[in-house]
Amino acid sequence: MYSFKNDYSEGAHPRILNALIQSNMIQEEGYGMDTHTKNAISKIKKLIGNEDIDVHLISGGTQTNLIAIGAFLRPYEACISANTGHIAVHETGAIEYTGHKVITVDSIDGKLTPDNIKDVLAFHVNEHAVKPRLVYISNPTELGTIYTNEELKVLSKFCNSNNLLLYADGARLGCALTVKEANLTISDMCNLTDAFFIGGTKNGALLGEALIIKNETLKEDFRYNIKQKGGLVAKGRLLGIQFEELFTDTLYFELANHANEMAKLLTEGLKNANCKFLIDSPTNQIFPILNNTLIEKLEKKFSFYTWEKIDANNSAIRLVTSWATKKEAVFEFIDELNIY
Amino acid sequence: MYSFKNDYSEGAHPRILNALIQSNMIQEEGYGMDTHTKNAISKIKKLIGNEDIDVHLISGGTQTNLIAIGAFLRPYEACISANTGHIAVHETGAIEYTGHKVITVDSIDGKLTPDNIKDVLAFHVNEHAVKPRLVYISNPTELGTIYTNEELKVLSKFCNSNNLLLYADGARLGCALTVKEANLTISDMCNLTDAFFIGGTKNGALLGEALIIKNETLKEDFRYNIKQKGGLVAKGRLLGIQFEELFTDTLYFELANHANEMAKLLTEGLKNANCKFLIDSPTNQIFPILNNTLIEKLEKKFSFYTWEKIDANNSAIRLVTSWATKKEAVFEFIDELNIY
Amino acid sequence: MYSFKNDYSEGAHPRILNALIQSNMIQEEGYGMDTHTKNAISKIKKLIGNEDIDVHLISGGTQTNLIAIGAFLRPYEACISANTGHIAVHETGAIEYTGHKVITVDSIDGKLTPDNIKDVLAFHVNEHAVKPRLVYISNPTELGTIYTNEELKVLSKFCNSNNLLLYADGARLGCALTVKEANLTISDMCNLTDAFFIGGTKNGALLGEALIIKNETLKEDFRYNIKQKGGLVAKGRLLGIQFEELFTDTLYFELANHANEMAKLLTEGLKNANCKFLIDSPTNQIFPILNNTLIEKLEKKFSFYTWEKIDANNSAIRLVTSWATKKEAVFEFIDELNIY
Amino acid sequence: MYSFKNDYSEGAHPRILNALIQSNMIQEEGYGMDTHTKNAISKIKKLIGNEDIDVHLISGGTQTNLIAIGAFLRPYEACISANTGHIAVHETGAIEYTGHKVITVDSIDGKLTPDNIKDVLAFHVNEHAVKPRLVYISNPTELGTIYTNEELKVLSKFCNSNNLLLYADGARLGCALTVKEANLTISDMCNLTDAFFIGGTKNGALLGEALIIKNETLKEDFRYNIKQKGGLVAKGRLLGIQFEELFTDTLYFELANHANEMAKLLTEGLKNANCKFLIDSPTNQIFPILNNTLIEKLEKKFSFYTWEKIDANNSAIRLVTSWATKKEAVFEFIDELNIY
Repeated sequence: MYSFKNDYSEGAHPRILNALIQSNMIQEEGYGMDTHTKNAISKIKKLIGNEDIDVHLISGGTQTNLIAIGAFLRPYEACISANTGHIAVHETGAIEYTGHKVITVDSIDGKLTPDNIKDVLAFHVNEHAVKPRLVYISNPTELGTIYTNEELKVLSKFCNSNNLLLYADGARLGCALTVKEANLTISDMCNLTDAFFIGGTKNGALLGEALIIKNETLKEDFRYNIKQKGGLVAKGRLLGIQFEELFTDTLYFELANHANEMAKLLTEGLKNANCKFLIDSPTNQIFPILNNTLIEKLEKKFSFYTWEKIDANNSAIRLVTSWATKKEAVFEFIDELNIY
Repeated sequence: MYSFKNDYSEGAHPRILNALIQSNMIQEEGYGMDTHTKNAISKIKKLIGNEDIDVHLISGGTQTNLIAIGAFLRPYEACISANTGHIAVHETGAIEYTGHKVITVDSIDGKLTPDNIKDVLAFHVNEHAVKPRLVYISNPTELGTIYTNEELKVLSKFCNSNNLLLYADGARLGCALTVKEANLTISDMCNLTDAFFIGGTKNGALLGEALIIKNETLKEDFRYNIKQKGGLVAKGRLLGIQFEELFTDTLYFELANHANEMAKLLTEGLKNANCKFLIDSPTNQIFPILNNTLIEKLEKKFSFYTWEKIDANNSAIRLVTSWATKKEAVFEFIDELNIY
Repeated sequence: MYSFKNDYSEGAHPRILNALIQSNMIQEEGYGMDTHTKNAISKIKKLIGNEDIDVHLISGGTQTNLIAIGAFLRPYEACISANTGHIAVHETGAIEYTGHKVITVDSIDGKLTPDNIKDVLAFHVNEHAVKPRLVYISNPTELGTIYTNEELKVLSKFCNSNNLLLYADGARLGCALTVKEANLTISDMCNLTDAFFIGGTKNGALLGEALIIKNETLKEDFRYNIKQKGGLVAKGRLLGIQFEELFTDTLYFELANHANEMAKLLTEGLKNANCKFLIDSPTNQIFPILNNTLIEKLEKKFSFYTWEKIDANNSAIRLVTSWATKKEAVFEFIDELNIY
Repeated sequence: MYSFKNDYSEGAHPRILNALIQSNMIQEEGYGMDTHTKNAISKIKKLIGNEDIDVHLISGGTQTNLIAIGAFLRPYEACISANTGHIAVHETGAIEYTGHKVITVDSIDGKLTPDNIKDVLAFHVNEHAVKPRLVYISNPTELGTIYTNEELKVLSKFCNSNNLLLYADGARLGCALTVKEANLTISDMCNLTDAFFIGGTKNGALLGEALIIKNETLKEDFRYNIKQKGGLVAKGRLLGIQFEELFTDTLYFELANHANEMAKLLTEGLKNANCKFLIDSPTNQIFPILNNTLIEKLEKKFSFYTWEKIDANNSAIRLVTSWATKKEAVFEFIDELNIY
């Protein structure tokens, strides 16, 4: 049974494991003060081309979101998110637990635009309602869609003009940045947001996200926030080594690109089989609409999530590829379609 | 420069790394539903001899404490801790961030007894003060001391009779359980507490603590709490594999025993050099009192924390050994004392 | 300038002020242990016909909601509210500040039905999302609409069958209970909910809401929650005296009935002037749709809120009546319509 | 049975009740935007001699503390308080519920000095512990003692030099300011602190505290915080009218002075009866040490709290006087001593 359920079914890229082994018995400082974390941060700053950013390595995506948003906002301030946003639906109220409302905006493609944010601002005008202060986007979104450079510029400008922080969840950031049509670099991500994170867990690391804080006012005492929320890993080397390896050369982007390529292959195969999609996605999550009988048949050989009922006979499923996805598995899946 | 600063300076025990490598490319379910986590839990239940306990693998100690205590208490309920307790002084107010007061009790050896808890109960009698509900102990304590079986029985009985939950932070639990004089087994830990955790990070794992919940009323929906606080690791296999390996045979206890043995060697060497101690510790943290000149000299070859000023000329230092401490380093340290 | 902006523009009903004066210099216990609070509670229990309920007097509606909901839920549990619910839009994220998500459901008339709750339940199925646990309704709703006995029975039954608590915000409860067509008594409110509150602030008191807790599992240690959230008033007599007076005879319902009658007069006058309404409301908040020119003219003599833009030329306004509304002011308002 | 238990046993000063009656049927804006609140704020600014301060009227002391401290601190920042401080012991963990640790300092007289704060600062040096940021004092303290002008200057200067906010709980502020020996005016209070509050509840009002925020950085959006914590009273006029009356002339200080005078009479009578005191207090709370037999006898005619056991035969009791204390009751109490 081959799994297309998610992009964290395997362990780590072999180069990462190897780096762990090589460094294993060398004594290092704890809590992110080790040489590997320092190297990783240095490499990331260089890649982005900005020495003034702060970089923090944190274990997971939900944890990064709750630490960052909890630190960035004053108690009565709120986030704005698409109704499909990870913080809105799949983090068990982690943001609310930090005391902040997540105001959701209906969105078909998982993306936010100035227009739907404007409605929120118009509604929240005084102290009887929360004060919208942070715009949360994910890139790619939870539906696999991405922001183009142009779209992100427009959103960024709008946020700046409206005293809104722009924060990007990059759990699968590599997959967004390797879509050429988006014309979006990691430096653009940094220039156009106040803070964002570079996901490791879903792109070949055992665990780890690199949070980038560009906005000067958000940097102060940030490690206190990490520690207080239980996010300061004693053996910070574990995170440092992984990001050091991912950003030593272009490994991070190669892995993301592979994931996208495998999704593209799947998409092509599905299209050749006359399949329609819930939404167009250029990244590693795709949402084909299939006949329920076919879905049942596929489930005997592959595992994946059924995403949404479309009508009595058809449902959308979610297929996720990753750095570890095997081309043979993709072909096998497509074959299964065609045999049908 | 050899470090005696802490027990998390190296990576993981080689057997753990090897287990990671062996399993690396096999697809597993996420979020702790993988076969390794299941195996680890099964082994731990067997070792403890109790199939009814719940076991959750969580990344770190502060995170485990804040998730557990935050889940166990109602909003107005409070913890009681020794004034040296980790939650009281070294977790950046993580427990208070979950909304709960940590009532501290003065304690010379880091331990709690019914007597000092009684004073707290006498003071907190109605709704104008918090309601003490959970007794937090660490075993070993932050000063390296331990609870004997007898002492823990007394404390446990007292808690039961006073509607207090007893929760034990076992960040270094292996080191407590391998001190024979304590006559305390891991089954005793389970029988005598409502919940406790078995520390992995400080005993040979890359990261990870195994939280054991025995009290039936504390079990419900616990995974919701883990997820909400950002503690549900996507690649839960990383935690599962490590605990699976640590508890496949007696590795966990061997590693702890080594740490204790190395500390004992250091203690003997220091005693032979006529050194006194801030406190008697049978585990892997010791607190010798040394002349400041000697401390300065030692600092040229070894790193460690200066713990407390004793008088104008002397200070207590903290030396920590671990599963990875080399006997040669211990001897070298002792030699340095004697040369002086 | 006469105000129809809200139902808290005047002070208290004269009988309440008189009761304050009469009792003023008699020494009483603090924090709700005074004889007046005891009397008020006793009268409320009698009126409801249930001696087993717990009654707590609290200063305001937002405070009552946050104390109650914060006390009733475990950290990962969430509320379900209509998108117009007071806790969802007009309490500055007070519920989220207690750590709980407010899941909103689109509703045209401000009311919840089993159908829209079912959708929420279907979406929240495991620990990756919050656990819906409490259904928040307001009666009357923020749009002036009310639940009939039959509707509330259906909702109550649904909640019971789905392990959901039903909690009712009764900031204007009197106005709901005095609409005869609803066929709903205060005893029904108690029987059909787990907890609800009887609003005083908006029905003739200076301040104060009486929270009724029927569900046995929600009662324990409740005063701790009130105190912790700053809601335990030192001179609890201030709240006690007011509810004692309101429930000595039928004053509470007379005041609410007057508010409804004044709204009905306004409604009739508006209908006679061919005015349409945003929504049909049988209570003391009405939402007529008027021409913008007329609105501007009315604003010269009356204050009220413009609620919603309907089209280029028309808007809905909100008119609120109260125990203190003068019939002459109502007639004057209607005259102003007709002159136009 | 006459009560010396506290200073909130009676209702309000008759002039306050009268002001409520006079203004009762005049329509006012809600939520503190009424003319009375504006007048009260204006009078308080004039009295303090500072037009730049922000003044907010809030219902009670615990509520004021939790709103202010919750608003002033970032999540990982902590308060420093004497171990007798109201926030430390008698607010049911309200401050911790806002997420902040209260670091307590042992103090015999309930007061803080730079020396005991220095120890706290020395211990909290990095992100593994909370960051001390706000010094909480009460004036008078919970033991009736007060800060002199000189003492407060020293403390204020120390806080300024150490990046610490100084916040004063003035639940009984009038009683501190009317002790001539202290040489401390309300303007001094404002000049020497970042924020403080003027207690109404314990000085003749039905309820209400006036929070003064001087520090510019603490002012922004403060009303959002009040609303979010349930502290924005719909009929804000209730608070406004009371403070307007208390500060129309010197009523506030006359009431406090009366309380102090009555305590002085009690103290003299007790001293004449050779009684010793737990602590010297110049304000309206005194702590005489009496023989247990005498205490039992007194309890038949008076109610008061037994504060602390001194030895087998003696205990300290607390006697509290107020604006409403009758001289006859004081004499009767003293007579009871002498008969003995």
